Amino acid sequence: MTDFRVIDGGITAPLGFKAAGKHVGIKRIKKDMSIVVSDVPAKAAGAYTQNLVKAAHILWDKDITDEGRAIRGLVAVSGNANACTGQRGITDNERMAEELARLIGADKKEVLTAATGIIGLDMPMETVVKGIKELYPDLSYRRESAKNAAAGIITTDTFIKEMALEMNIAGKTVKIGGMAKGSGMVHPNMATVLSFITTDINISQELLKKALIMSVKDTYNMISVDGAMSTNDMALIMANGLAGNAEITEEDEFFEKFCEAVMFINEKFAIDIVHDGEGSQKFIQVDISGGRTTEDARILAKSIVTNDLVKTAMYGEDANWGRIIAAMGGSGGYFDLKKLKMEFKNDKGTLLLMENGEPVPFDENIALDILGEQDIYIKITLGDGEGKARSYGCDLGHEYIRINGEYRSRS
Amino acid sequence: MTDFRVIDGGITAPLGFKAAGKHVGIKRIKKDMSIVVSDVPAKAAGAYTQNLVKAAHILWDKDITDEGRAIRGLVAVSGNANACTGQRGITDNERMAEELARLIGADKKEVLTAATGIIGLDMPMETVVKGIKELYPDLSYRRESAKNAAAGIITTDTFIKEMALEMNIAGKTVKIGGMAKGSGMVHPNMATVLSFITTDINISQELLKKALIMSVKDTYNMISVDGAMSTNDMALIMANGLAGNAEITEEDEFFEKFCEAVMFINEKFAIDIVHDGEGSQKFIQVDISGGRTTEDARILAKSIVTNDLVKTAMYGEDANWGRIIAAMGGSGGYFDLKKLKMEFKNDKGTLLLMENGEPVPFDENIALDILGEQDIYIKITLGDGEGKARSYGCDLGHEYIRINGEYRSRS
Repeated sequence: MTDFRVIDGGITAPLGFKAAGKHVGIKRIKKDMSIVVSDVPAKAAGAYTQNLVKAAHILWDKDITDEGRAIRGLVAVSGNANACTGQRGITDNERMAEELARLIGADKKEVLTAATGIIGLDMPMETVVKGIKELYPDLSYRRESAKNAAAGIITTDTFIKEMALEMNIAGKTVKIGGMAKGSGMVHPNMATVLSFITTDINISQELLKKALIMSVKDTYNMISVDGAMSTNDMALIMANGLAGNAEITEEDEFFEKFCEAVMFINEKFAIDIVHDGEGSQKFIQVDISGGRTTEDARILAKSIVTNDLVKTAMYGEDANWGRIIAAMGGSGGYFDLKKLKMEFKNDKGTLLLMENGEPVPFDENIALDILGEQDIYIKITLGDGEGKARSYGCDLGHEYIRINGEYRSRS
Repeated sequence: MTDFRVIDGGITAPLGFKAAGKHVGIKRIKKDMSIVVSDVPAKAAGAYTQNLVKAAHILWDKDITDEGRAIRGLVAVSGNANACTGQRGITDNERMAEELARLIGADKKEVLTAATGIIGLDMPMETVVKGIKELYPDLSYRRESAKNAAAGIITTDTFIKEMALEMNIAGKTVKIGGMAKGSGMVHPNMATVLSFITTDINISQELLKKALIMSVKDTYNMISVDGAMSTNDMALIMANGLAGNAEITEEDEFFEKFCEAVMFINEKFAIDIVHDGEGSQKFIQVDISGGRTTEDARILAKSIVTNDLVKTAMYGEDANWGRIIAAMGGSGGYFDLKKLKMEFKNDKGTLLLMENGEPVPFDENIALDILGEQDIYIKITLGDGEGKARSYGCDLGHEYIRINGEYRSRS
């Protein structure tokens, strides 16, 4: 039993957060801009792509959150990534922040920005500025507005991703809301993952950041999106304190509760992202236990879902333990093969494939039963320590080739 | 102009090396065993897979070459990788060495072994031992025997890979011969790369090892075989000194000549391996110059040929600079985007895609011309230093999915 409960809601679920989303003209038809505003200054933290090549908003937001500034709002666009756009892109991004700041009576550095979409294309700034002006009056606390905002940030997602949780922190009701985008498999522009979480909890900026980073490590950093790290990936969290609880300044039971909730949302979003994607047919979850360290377990788990030979085997519904072992062995993560046990599982049953590092005979029919399902769970038990990790990924099949092989870049 | 010349030959080109190869019964029909014997003890060095999971022969050979033992021969089988076969596999491998050693009057630790093929399957030792006995009388210096040996080590290769070079070292004629196997793209059992080089040069064991390791770093370690590091990969070199030159014990001009020749052979084999493979349609070579360090350049070059989004773009003949940049940016190798220039080249011309980190307009027709060819050269000029590196890879298309998705493991 968890200490929180899921409620119907999204980014506007916590107190004092308004949102809006609509089509302003960046895309042809679909919604392409979202704004989120906090009535009062909110503490903010972010986790950003490690890619050396960073979209303009990454640099802007990282500056702001690194300085620990309180923020008032966020403006996000989809259809244009504002990446590889040089100095012009930096200037355009700042202007986007300025425009929303002006309307809500804040400083430009109190406004975070985000973008996802085509890279190397200058932002259509007339459209963007006009769009912010038009969108501003739509800001509201309503459920509908949260949905619109969630739709304004997606690109190749086939469904919007939202969630809200409610919990009790020291006698006060605290809410957490979120929206995310990302299409795990099939994104010609590198499957940008964006995650935005709002909450009315009262917490220190330092612990807010810690809660976010810890959850990102075990969720977005553990999903494979065809091995390509986007130039735009980002996870943000904003906490405005309006729930009125005593400020959380220590890693106590309340902090733990909060971390669990943030983990829950980001894990659900990560799983949604991997499940979403026109090119995939299988959802793969890998659980590693008994790793020498947590880091070893993470490296090993990730290596399995990113390996093409494993992914094609999953597509082909083949119980190929050999490819899994080779992926692990080449990953850099440590394990002693002689202690390794490997099973494929689902609700129907468990298939033991390896024990003490050697293959065991198995029933082909049971294998087909398990591998024939959409969700495949690979459970690997090592004997090297207490390290645990979980990763998520999908198969590699013809649809991936079709969509990514037929994409045409602009010249 | 090089200091060596290519001659017709293979593993038996240098003085004092005999070879043989035939079908003994491990595979159904094709040749599946090769032996190579040196008339006199030869110095040997090896480069071995870094995969934590190592086939039985890797452990055996590494022990021998690490100790700097002189060796007399090599026995290699194809059709069975002798990997993930536990203690039984270790014992079988030793027996294989013992059998050849007995016949050639050597100690078992003077015989190296190799295997490639299906993993997790015990070696059919009756067949193997009988095979060695039958193959032994076929040993000869003849060209035909070298070809047979080159055929006995292949698995999914569509052509055998051999080469021989001749050069003058301090007034003596020195020859180098080699055979290799590996099918860059499409190998359900992880595209094992095996490379065997023989030479009659007189050189210290330490410098022999250095020459091998340096060449492996820039060749086999710079090719992408769908990101999976085999449990069986190995490159061996054996030098028996019969050319009679004064022993090379310093990194002088003769050592340099020798290194160039070893590099030439291994580079040719690496390119052959990438070109070979039923599933690939494009051969990709990436050249990076101006890297902050050589290591940075290597990491960056390798990241491009291993990235699925880049590989599918090549398959789709799309000039997708964005995917290349994102692959580099996520690789861990350093570069300053603002100084980056990217070109696609071939004999017909050069297509400039990026300058100073920003995309430049290009002619779609020229792009199609260049990308329509089988060989695609990507030239990236950085502005961070003097580091250079070259990598090789191939596209990712439907054939890869078909072959690797339809493979059935044994249960």
